[in-house]
Amino acid sequence: MLSSNITRDENGALRFAGQSVPALAQRYGTPLYLMDEARIRANCRMYKNAFESAFGGAALPLYASKACSFRQMYRIMAEEGMGVDAVSRGEIHTAITAGFPAERIWFHGCGKTDADIRYALEQGVGCFIVDGMEELEALNAEAGRRGVRQKILLRVTPGIDPHTYEAVNTGRVDVKFGVPIGTGQALDFVRAALNSPNVAVDGLHCHVGSMVFDENVFEDTVDLMLAFMLTLRDTLGYTAGTLDLGGGYGVRYVDEDKQVDIPGRITALAAHLRSRAAELGLPVPYILMEPGRSIVADAGLTVYTVSAVKRIPGFKNHVIVDGGMTDNPRYCLYKARYTVLHAGRETGETAVFDLAGCCCESGDILQPAVTLPADIRRGEQVAVCTTGAYNYSMASNYNRQGRPPVVMLRDGESCIAVRREGLEDLCALDV
Amino acid sequence: MLSSNITRDENGALRFAGQSVPALAQRYGTPLYLMDEARIRANCRMYKNAFESAFGGAALPLYASKACSFRQMYRIMAEEGMGVDAVSRGEIHTAITAGFPAERIWFHGCGKTDADIRYALEQGVGCFIVDGMEELEALNAEAGRRGVRQKILLRVTPGIDPHTYEAVNTGRVDVKFGVPIGTGQALDFVRAALNSPNVAVDGLHCHVGSMVFDENVFEDTVDLMLAFMLTLRDTLGYTAGTLDLGGGYGVRYVDEDKQVDIPGRITALAAHLRSRAAELGLPVPYILMEPGRSIVADAGLTVYTVSAVKRIPGFKNHVIVDGGMTDNPRYCLYKARYTVLHAGRETGETAVFDLAGCCCESGDILQPAVTLPADIRRGEQVAVCTTGAYNYSMASNYNRQGRPPVVMLRDGESCIAVRREGLEDLCALDV
Repeated sequence: MLSSNITRDENGALRFAGQSVPALAQRYGTPLYLMDEARIRANCRMYKNAFESAFGGAALPLYASKACSFRQMYRIMAEEGMGVDAVSRGEIHTAITAGFPAERIWFHGCGKTDADIRYALEQGVGCFIVDGMEELEALNAEAGRRGVRQKILLRVTPGIDPHTYEAVNTGRVDVKFGVPIGTGQALDFVRAALNSPNVAVDGLHCHVGSMVFDENVFEDTVDLMLAFMLTLRDTLGYTAGTLDLGGGYGVRYVDEDKQVDIPGRITALAAHLRSRAAELGLPVPYILMEPGRSIVADAGLTVYTVSAVKRIPGFKNHVIVDGGMTDNPRYCLYKARYTVLHAGRETGETAVFDLAGCCCESGDILQPAVTLPADIRRGEQVAVCTTGAYNYSMASNYNRQGRPPVVMLRDGESCIAVRREGLEDLCALDV
Repeated sequence: MLSSNITRDENGALRFAGQSVPALAQRYGTPLYLMDEARIRANCRMYKNAFESAFGGAALPLYASKACSFRQMYRIMAEEGMGVDAVSRGEIHTAITAGFPAERIWFHGCGKTDADIRYALEQGVGCFIVDGMEELEALNAEAGRRGVRQKILLRVTPGIDPHTYEAVNTGRVDVKFGVPIGTGQALDFVRAALNSPNVAVDGLHCHVGSMVFDENVFEDTVDLMLAFMLTLRDTLGYTAGTLDLGGGYGVRYVDEDKQVDIPGRITALAAHLRSRAAELGLPVPYILMEPGRSIVADAGLTVYTVSAVKRIPGFKNHVIVDGGMTDNPRYCLYKARYTVLHAGRETGETAVFDLAGCCCESGDILQPAVTLPADIRRGEQVAVCTTGAYNYSMASNYNRQGRPPVVMLRDGESCIAVRREGLEDLCALDV
């Protein structure tokens, strides 16, 4: 199986986090997001422990909560001692009303409005990751009005291509995020921040992309960032105390994907950082990283019920389910790959099907060319694996479909973390 | 200007449906969906009048409400005498609770569940468009249990490529919708329906795609469908009384797009239909069509506030706004083209920018390479035109962003049709 939390019982029925998938589907209905709480916590601890041993505690993983954001998730992050990367008022509000401490929130975003800035200052968010000059000016002015000095990191663009999906590639010099080092603009940006009386510059942020698989991406980033830190020290006399490396490591969606040894990579990264900093005569900065996908992706599994099977001889076969691009738009957006399993039984004689959603849109495909039992039929269930990241958080109401509930699995029990969106919920904002 | 409802006043400020866009943005905030109610009604009347004169009243346009679905829209459709094409319980519920008569709803969908079928029967939906054999069996059984005989159309796939986007191309034989004529399966499907005692087969449905620009697409479809109707008469002794041609005509998003003469096309289509039916000795069927985009697209305009402008010398310029793929995912999904205008002033000296959204995702682009004033700055507003279709209806809460309100413009006044999604709304389903 793709992940150790996916197994089959003696009758061939799928189990997730040790619980029967058909029984959960029966109890909660489909489509259904299942989340394995133990796996989320294990992933947090993997980062926390690796950071502790590799950086001697001078490091913190921030959960990139855009990967999957609802109140229960922030409660877990609080209990696990994680920081949180939030990208909007919505994420900050959700975190804080779940009891997550504001001072452990790092506030991201390339387009913070005046309202965003006011709200985050009001809530006492720990650190702003300032994305550009306009935000710096607006934040400095608003913090001044409030008589506070806000801790910030400055997001700069190192100019690196992490060989990842284009849509999650954020390190190139021409992206919308941050201020480029290569053009000289980042130096002016840091200078302006140091001259802004109402912000306290804690260090630098960079982000070269999520889904990092390549061995040397973070190491290359460290080299570029340390070189820039040296420039800052020599030019401005400023030594950055914190370096946020952004991003996170890649996740296995299909058997062919590599399994990244995350603790091993972190150990290697820390050694590289220490040795390069020593070479340059720089102190080793406090390290932040922002894993999202690698915290929650393999903790998620989506269950659907088959509503139609179409066999078009000589052309193609379709399995149509009761969800689709509304609960998982990632194939439509990125041609993302997923592993699809029959939830009820082992695959005997098989056939190849496109797994299609129920939306009235030809492009509503969850995954093309998946292998399923040849005799699969209406009423049976299928599971799409590794859906914990960027599924619930990207879900829409297209075709006026309600979003599925999120059910959290823990210690052999299940409980609803987000309830199913019903017909009246869909009209809640209609006048 | 792209559309006659977009103008500029003497100071260069944008007007939409005769009202000041900056003033509306000031009043309602941004991002903001504006809808021109007079244009929606005019588009309905264009179809209604053309159908009346071309088909002598033996025809009805059904508004494909997945294009834009909220209560006020269905009230307008009721007043304009349109039928409605609904694709989910959510759309049916919204329509009916807005006062739209159930018997004028045609219920679409390639993956209707038992719950969908029960719900629609309970509500007294006028006609099911039955997409395949499993649905036929489930519907016949459930109608039987309720002691009703449900009116249906049978969706068949003619096998035609309408030269449109792949994602909206639904006529090819290998799509997930309907039952193919070419493989012989559609004949079996009609036979089975005629032998199902609890359904009344009103005729046939086909859909070759939305955004039809080519002159001959609907005519080619008519030829294929009449040929199949002849087969049905000769083989099964069944004469289909209704033919639903699905789809709708294309819409101009940018100046280079063709302007389709919809009434002219409908007149030509009707002439073609009559002559071909006469040749084959078939009665002229009652005609249905399902325009969605061409009813609402040019009635919509989205207003954003610029939060950052990034000029990366030698690389690229970005204008970042306070919305993005969350309120309009169509560039991300389809590379859809849009016309972008500065809302406050005429464009003097210009530069080329990528218009980017505020999501923490590199791919969050509303439109690449748009021409805007070279000195555009934070706090100014831009408008994206022709956003009435598949924007609000496809919106998500990705990055935990609230969805913008929909403000309806009518007779110089404005009123909220869908209110802005606030922070508490975002957590309404969280436990």
